[in-house]
Formats: sequence, structure tokens, C-alpha cells
Amino acid sequence: MGEAIAAVYEITAEDPAARAVLVAVEQSHELPTELAPDNAVRDSLAHVRTVVERPGRPALVTVDFPVDLAGGEPGQLLVLLLGNVSLQDGVRLVDLDVPAGLAAALPGPRLGVAGVRAIVGEPERALLATALKPVGMTSAQLADLARDCALGGLHILKEDQGLANQPWAPFRDRVPRVAEAVSRANAETGGRAAYLPVVDGTEEQLRFAFESGAQGVVVIPGVAGFGALARAGAAGGIVLAHPSFLGGFTASPSHGIAPDVLFGTLLRLAGADVSVFPSWGGRFGLDRAQCLAIADAARRPLHGVAPVLPAPGGGMSIARAPELLDAYGPDTVFLIGADLQRGGDPRRAAQRLAAALK
Amino acid sequence: MGEAIAAVYEITAEDPAARAVLVAVEQSHELPTELAPDNAVRDSLAHVRTVVERPGRPALVTVDFPVDLAGGEPGQLLVLLLGNVSLQDGVRLVDLDVPAGLAAALPGPRLGVAGVRAIVGEPERALLATALKPVGMTSAQLADLARDCALGGLHILKEDQGLANQPWAPFRDRVPRVAEAVSRANAETGGRAAYLPVVDGTEEQLRFAFESGAQGVVVIPGVAGFGALARAGAAGGIVLAHPSFLGGFTASPSHGIAPDVLFGTLLRLAGADVSVFPSWGGRFGLDRAQCLAIADAARRPLHGVAPVLPAPGGGMSIARAPELLDAYGPDTVFLIGADLQRGGDPRRAAQRLAAALK
Repeated sequence: MGEAIAAVYEITAEDPAARAVLVAVEQSHELPTELAPDNAVRDSLAHVRTVVERPGRPALVTVDFPVDLAGGEPGQLLVLLLGNVSLQDGVRLVDLDVPAGLAAALPGPRLGVAGVRAIVGEPERALLATALKPVGMTSAQLADLARDCALGGLHILKEDQGLANQPWAPFRDRVPRVAEAVSRANAETGGRAAYLPVVDGTEEQLRFAFESGAQGVVVIPGVAGFGALARAGAAGGIVLAHPSFLGGFTASPSHGIAPDVLFGTLLRLAGADVSVFPSWGGRFGLDRAQCLAIADAARRPLHGVAPVLPAPGGGMSIARAPELLDAYGPDTVFLIGADLQRGGDPRRAAQRLAAALK
Repeated sequence: MGEAIAAVYEITAEDPAARAVLVAVEQSHELPTELAPDNAVRDSLAHVRTVVERPGRPALVTVDFPVDLAGGEPGQLLVLLLGNVSLQDGVRLVDLDVPAGLAAALPGPRLGVAGVRAIVGEPERALLATALKPVGMTSAQLADLARDCALGGLHILKEDQGLANQPWAPFRDRVPRVAEAVSRANAETGGRAAYLPVVDGTEEQLRFAFESGAQGVVVIPGVAGFGALARAGAAGGIVLAHPSFLGGFTASPSHGIAPDVLFGTLLRLAGADVSVFPSWGGRFGLDRAQCLAIADAARRPLHGVAPVLPAPGGGMSIARAPELLDAYGPDTVFLIGADLQRGGDPRRAAQRLAAALK
């Protein structure tokens, strides 16, 4: 066997070593080993490397997958790591080590931290973003909101994941209008605020977004697929991944995927430049340690794969911005939604946010 | 407000009525209502219709979503129903009623039960399928296995979800070879066994699969995206949805999506003709009632959307086939993998399976 992908699982079971073997087989051959031909057993069967039992906690199991099983595709890597086992209980993916060759073969981020900073013209300070919402606003209303936030000094105006092709602001009407409004604001400020519409992941919407003047797109891999991140990256511009519909994997401590592996490592390898996740202290359940682990997984050295930007959101506020900057550091996209719309003057609120983070 | 999508959630919370309002807002505006413009509040805000508290059980909450919020897209429908809330605990989608207009606008199955039966030439009996596996076999080995199963009388030879573009049997080498082997077997038997390779959801692989002689494809919406089902349907042939990587939604009883809503209603509306799920008594955790509810959701009347085929799998056996036929009825794809390879004669095992179900 050549190089291996090492996946670390927490396994909750009476006999974790036996269960570990079942996981290795399920996630590679999905066939009792005695029925597989010799060449497949030799080349493509996953193996349990170690089982560490821990009193009162799930056992820690490392499984080696022959690297070729991933086929160089992010979607297949996910099928491999947790596809079928996601339908069983008691198995949680908590760490992952991919060989350098696979890291190079996977799409990865096209821009990463440095590329996003170059686009928005901010070489070192924290990056500020908002979500254009709510759905139900007209294209003109959304364009006004984007303009105000760009004039106020935000770097990224992303659309809310709830925006699609609804009648109030159809995609082909909305995207050029908002792009134009942001472009005019940039001309006024001399800044380079980036507008990122939500796309469904098809080539058609990607092309239209960039032709309309968007500087990137919002992709929802939970519904659009993980390959959509790479397609968006190939189309050019900033790729922002939104966690909508991915929460099934983070809901249970004895199941799914640790948030840092999912929102950090896996989305980075699949091609996100910016990974949105719900930060602690807002409306969602991740704690401080989990959030900082996501940020670390997004940025730490990974076989030459560019570091990417964690984007904590989910009920953040201007008042908390200094605390969050202190915790996450400046290579972060701080995503603040509702709090910018309080008081009815998003431009001024954006300025206050920028001031709070200087 | 016009027509509404009625979503029923089980909500586990101290004050379920208050939590229900938070869910309705999170899943539509994602913004405190007092900050939204009047036109959005009027047209696009979701509303709690009823809250039924039940002693010792989660409250049952019905939320009405203005139908236009889904934008006629399956991916956006999922974002709407559970996107952000999937990242919180205590909310489970357990039923769904879409208006006729939305059912018609969503892709839906192109073939459904009748169309799949027409392709495989089996007007009324139970449909029999196997998974070509394990990964690691060469294209020639997989072609031999497919041929044997077709000669033995199976209707559908689907690839295992673990097959992708790996070096042992690269996609562009494997698909034409297996298609050719099945075609030769069909010529010999006079049957019409269908071969369904796994595709990554891109137009390129879809086109190649059908040009190579496949009669359909396996799509993994959990990684390829839900829009991939509709793209596959538009390309022609049978669309089989595989549940890999969707298990996050079924792992916890207080979270996620009830299996019948996910594997039945939602995948049917998104365009699956056949929906694979792990049946009871195998290696996975769904119970008998959940499995039969999936089958019912796949086939029951739904505003003129064609009924589709439930495909129970996940450790099924020839011995259990009569019991399963009795439970699921004939409008079912019985998916049996390893048990056909036991004994080293898949053709004969397929014949025994066919005989057991006659």
C-alpha cells in the first residue's frame, strides 16, 4: 500500500476495536473482506492503524485509507471519510491528515487569505463583511443596502443564503444592480469593496455573476454540492462557503464531523477562500474552543495549500467586535448582519464597526 | 400572503412557542422583524401557524412559508426548511406540505415508477438490483460482475457509491466497458437490465455516461448537491439517489429531518426516480416503521408528481427477500449487494433472488 489518508474517529461502542474494523470496511469496500478479490484487498481496503480506549470517553481510532480511494475529488473524499457511516451512530470524524499528493490534487483555495486581501485592497487589517438581507427586499433595496455598507467601509458584501431566484429580486435583475451600486460606492470612496451574490453552483449562474461585476460568490455546499466550490474558484473571484444545511454533522457529540474538520480542513481542501460558521455567543451552539479550532484549521500549514479566512457569524455585534478580533486575529472575515441595520443607518454602523476594529 | 409551504417541526425547548417564532424568522428573514422593511415583512416572512404541546414529547409546530421563498429550486427549498436551523439543536423537520404550484415547479422525477419499469421491461414484479463493488476491482472485473448479474435476471446494476475516478477503474475506461458487458448480456437473455454508473453530477460525466450506453446514473446528493438530481434527469435515463453523507440528518431524534421526509418526499421532489435508503435489519439504524414511511412518501399521491421507487439496501439478503417483498410491495427496488457475491457465482445467486421474489 502506498500513501494513506489518516482519518481519526471517535467511536462509541462496546467493542471499539471491532467497530473500527467495520468502519474501515464499510468506508472502503462495503463488502465482507473474504468476498473481495485479492487485488482489491491488497490495493483498496482501508485498515485500522490504532485504537486508543479512553475511560469515560469514546475510543480514538485511526483508519488508514489508501490515498487513491479519494480519486482526487473532494466529493469522493467525503464519501470515503464518512459517507455511509454517517447513517450509523457512534462514529465521529475528529481529525484528518491527507498526504501532500492528495492535498495538491484536490481543488483547494484559488485565492486564500492573500488573494482575498489583494481583491479587497486590505493588506493586513481585519476584514469586515455583512449579509444583504432579508429576502423579500427588492433589488433596489438590496442595492441601496450594499451601497451604504460599501460607503461605510466594509470589505465584503455577501448576499444572505436565503436569496436565490425569488420574484422580489430575481437573480438576473438583482446581481447587476447590486454590483453596479457597489461599483459606484467604490468609485466614491476609492475602496475596493467586493460583492458576492449567492449562486446555485451551476456554470450559468457563475458566469452571469462575474460578467455582472461580482468579485466573488457565495456557495452553499450543503445543497449545491462540494464540487460547486471548485467550479466557483475556477470561474474566478472570491469563493465564500456558507454552512447552511451542513448542521446535521455538528449536532451530536457522538456522531458526524468535528466542526474544525468540516468548516476548516474539508471546506479549505474543497476550494473555499472564506468559510462562514456560527461563532460562539450568538444564536448557535458551537463553543469558543470549537470556533478557534475552526479558525486554526482554516489557516495552519497544510502541505502548501493556501490558508483561508474563517468568517465567524451568526448573531455577531459591533459591541463584541474587539473581543472577537482579539480571539480570532486579523486574518478573519468578521460577518455582522442585523447589528448593522439597527438604527436605520448601515453606513454609519459600518463606520463604527470599522473604527471598533482599528 | 399567497400559498404557503407548511413545514411541521418537532421542537424540543422550554418554551416551544417562542422557539417556533425564532425558527420562522431564522428560516426566512434571518433578521429581527422590526429591522425588516415593510414590504418584506408583508411578503416574505414565515409565520407560526400552530404549536401543539405534547406531554413528554417534543412540541409539534407548523410553520407557513410563503411559497415564493423556495424560488422553485430544490436546493433553496432545503435552505428554507432547515438550512440555518440545522446548525442548532432541538428542531426536527417531520412533515412537509408543498402547494401544487411548487410541486409542479420543482424538477420532480422524470420517469418515476412507470418510467423505470418501461426502461427495464418489467411491468409489475418487484425490481431487483445490486451494487457493483468493491472499489479496487478493475474495469474488467466490474464488467464481469455486471454481466453475471444481468444474466442472472437483475433489473438494475448500479455502481457502489465508492466508485469514482480511481486508478483501478477510471471513469472513462470503466463506464463503456461495463455498459458493453451489460448490453451483451441483455442480447443473450432478451432482457433489458439497466447499468447505472456513479457520476459526480457534472454535465461532462452525465453526457459521457449516457453516450457510453448507461441507462441511468447514481447521484449522491449529499456531496454532489441536490441540483445534480435534476441535471441527471434532464440528461435522460434513470436517476438513482444514494444516501451517502446525508446521515447527519437522521442521526438524532431531536434534530435533523425525519427519514421519510428526506429520503421520500424531498428527494422525490428534487428529481430522484429511485431513492436508496438503509432498511431495517441490516447494518444501519432505521426501524421498520421509518422504512415503510419512506416507501409511502416515495409513492403516495403528491399533486401529480410521479411516484418513485424506494430502494431498501444496506445489508439485505436473499433469505430476507420474501419478508421484504411482503412489507414493501412490488413497486420497490430491492438492493442486494454482498449476498449475491457469496458463493462466488453471482449469476446463480441472482437467479435465486429472482426466484425468491416471484
